Amino acid sequence: MCILVQESLIKCTLLLTPMIQRPRGTRDFTPQEMETRRYLEGMFRREAELHGFGEIATPIFENTELFTLKSGPNIIDEMYAFEDKGGRQIALRPELTAPSMRFFVNDLTNYPRPLKLFYFGQCFRYERPQSGRFREFFQFGAELIGAPNPESDAEVIGLAADMIKRSGLTDYNIRIGHIGVLRGKLSEGGVTPEMAAPILQKLDKRLLDEARPLMKEAGLNDSAIEDVIGTTQIIGSPDLLEKHAGEAIDYLKGVFAVLGDYGITNVQVDLGVVRGLDYYTGIVFEMDAPCLGAEKQICGGGSYSLTELFGGEKVFSTGFAIGFDRTLLALEREGLTPARRRLDAYVVPTSDAMRRKAFAIVGMLRRQGIATDVDLMRRSVGKNLKYADSLGARHVIIVGEKEDAQASVTVRNLASGEQRLVALGSLVDCLK
Amino acid sequence: MCILVQESLIKCTLLLTPMIQRPRGTRDFTPQEMETRRYLEGMFRREAELHGFGEIATPIFENTELFTLKSGPNIIDEMYAFEDKGGRQIALRPELTAPSMRFFVNDLTNYPRPLKLFYFGQCFRYERPQSGRFREFFQFGAELIGAPNPESDAEVIGLAADMIKRSGLTDYNIRIGHIGVLRGKLSEGGVTPEMAAPILQKLDKRLLDEARPLMKEAGLNDSAIEDVIGTTQIIGSPDLLEKHAGEAIDYLKGVFAVLGDYGITNVQVDLGVVRGLDYYTGIVFEMDAPCLGAEKQICGGGSYSLTELFGGEKVFSTGFAIGFDRTLLALEREGLTPARRRLDAYVVPTSDAMRRKAFAIVGMLRRQGIATDVDLMRRSVGKNLKYADSLGARHVIIVGEKEDAQASVTVRNLASGEQRLVALGSLVDCLK
Repeated sequence: MCILVQESLIKCTLLLTPMIQRPRGTRDFTPQEMETRRYLEGMFRREAELHGFGEIATPIFENTELFTLKSGPNIIDEMYAFEDKGGRQIALRPELTAPSMRFFVNDLTNYPRPLKLFYFGQCFRYERPQSGRFREFFQFGAELIGAPNPESDAEVIGLAADMIKRSGLTDYNIRIGHIGVLRGKLSEGGVTPEMAAPILQKLDKRLLDEARPLMKEAGLNDSAIEDVIGTTQIIGSPDLLEKHAGEAIDYLKGVFAVLGDYGITNVQVDLGVVRGLDYYTGIVFEMDAPCLGAEKQICGGGSYSLTELFGGEKVFSTGFAIGFDRTLLALEREGLTPARRRLDAYVVPTSDAMRRKAFAIVGMLRRQGIATDVDLMRRSVGKNLKYADSLGARHVIIVGEKEDAQASVTVRNLASGEQRLVALGSLVDCLK
Repeated sequence: MCILVQESLIKCTLLLTPMIQRPRGTRDFTPQEMETRRYLEGMFRREAELHGFGEIATPIFENTELFTLKSGPNIIDEMYAFEDKGGRQIALRPELTAPSMRFFVNDLTNYPRPLKLFYFGQCFRYERPQSGRFREFFQFGAELIGAPNPESDAEVIGLAADMIKRSGLTDYNIRIGHIGVLRGKLSEGGVTPEMAAPILQKLDKRLLDEARPLMKEAGLNDSAIEDVIGTTQIIGSPDLLEKHAGEAIDYLKGVFAVLGDYGITNVQVDLGVVRGLDYYTGIVFEMDAPCLGAEKQICGGGSYSLTELFGGEKVFSTGFAIGFDRTLLALEREGLTPARRRLDAYVVPTSDAMRRKAFAIVGMLRRQGIATDVDLMRRSVGKNLKYADSLGARHVIIVGEKEDAQASVTVRNLASGEQRLVALGSLVDCLK
């Protein structure tokens, strides 16, 4: 009794030792979660390679200036920005387009164009953690640099569409617009670019009642205002474009034509897509997964020009970023998570004398490409069977003295419970 | 002439705009570099999975305390440590063992043991950048948690050995020691653990002339000192252990026996491996690639106990980390870089009228798993052939009117220059 009391006292003491936690808003991923994540990442990567895009990687942090040049000084409040020991202002990257274009300006301007790049990695934002939004999150994106044509835009949208299709998601929509349509209408009505910016931001968020007074203030008459509002509500089949005219509309028609040639038909026009950022120059597009509710956007992109801000020549590009975590969440909501990749074999020696034979079999199987694990705890056969089951092993290989005398092992299929004697010479074939 | 002058003036002005650089000590990776890196990462990952290890991931930054608890307060000077906007002390991770064990203590203690985990990711150190040492670098590592046996240690060393073997590196060595051998000799001579620590650090760096006076100061007589020095020089075949005795030596013999059973024979004993860190509890091992010169260590590991520092119960583990960048450098020095994965096909329309047919062919080929790119610049056939060559495409597919009339395309093999007419129906087979 006395010992029991002491043990529980010790446990109490241990519980009082504070446990170090992961930082707020970040996540750890278990082996099961990593299998799902690597599977989706692999599908995305394979699709990007099929489309002739090549992977790049840039550092986790950048000089803070890179992001303030692109997005304005207010971005600092939303970033992990800090001063390093050398007094340099650095920031954990909040997105990957600016780093990619910085890399292009630094080192890739002599590459043959168009240059088709993709990337996958962590990004960071300093904001209140909330459902589906983490301080460390993952983006998969692509940039096509140096080809400002409807076909190059279609190539980029087509990649995003094919990636999501390959992921297996079924309920999503792809909406494509052109920033020039609304900008053109505001400009025709005499609205200056400076006054247009806040209006476009309201329209981007579909806050029509807040956009109307801003447009009035900017000098638009009621009919021009309603024309702008009406334009943002043109959403649906690309055929809707037939009733409209203008340079931006013609360009959009060209994009939809090439997407059709590629066999990508699940795309809509949405002239209300604005993307709220000044640097977009032409087409803009978004993808939503309605099952995600309020935070339903899984992809956003468009054509833009950033290189001149970073000290390079002006080069037109088109790109997108897919929210990797949100796409995974949408796949989970649709019940689509890949089956767990299982261990092929778990090897159990029945006695200490058989232990070294077991290790030799494990070494041989691994060299033959069979994923194999083995008892490392000197446990009983029963306990080993339980552990093998928890690992999801397909087979248990029992290495016993009786079997050894016949240069064989017992192979047990854990799903069916079926057991049979297998000669060592045919073991690999039996497990494949 | 006037225009030319103006252009060069403009270029001058552009050159004066400061170019944003990547942060000091960090790298960007081109598509060619990423192919090599992903290839090696894939080989390492596949080998770890063959050995029954499962991948985990932890955040890029942690609470600073995690690393000071493990390595002492001085580590702060070598880290990117900063205060976030919420006043929390956080640090970019300098290594991945502490985060893995923190994750274990937080969430994985109920998993069946042994728990076999691996990880791959960026780590960071704040130090003067130098050849082969970057401020952002990559580690691939593994931890086996909860099995303190010679066979579990052999399992971990065996994984490291099989990973490097699979990478194709030929000139390297694996040296295994046991921290208990030298600690035991110092302790027998009356040296306290506090006095032993700086001695072991000197021995770890093979600074024998600096270790001698410290041992003398700690009370060892000359013959005991020479015994310690002699022990650090026992390096070579595991047979060398036959002449020695003691608990640690017996344990090491057990580790070598299991490695032999696994078929791993390119391993040496090295009783001078100390690894300079207090938390190692038993075996310690290192791998070197001599072609790397002074910075030749590519892997280090051992058995340790950290969980109790992070607020968990005491659990013995064995793990290692492979320096991914150094391993790649060693492979490059040996001339071993994987051949560039090439584009299967590049599609060229011979006229604007053929452009849309070309896109339809591209869409079809990609859906069949053929990596395909296409003219997005409306270039001439000659310029397209040059671009296709720069991409390393295997075939160019020419979509012309003459061919189209026969429901065919011309397929040109870029390596041989051979050209032939191929019916659309057999195009996929022709390219596979």
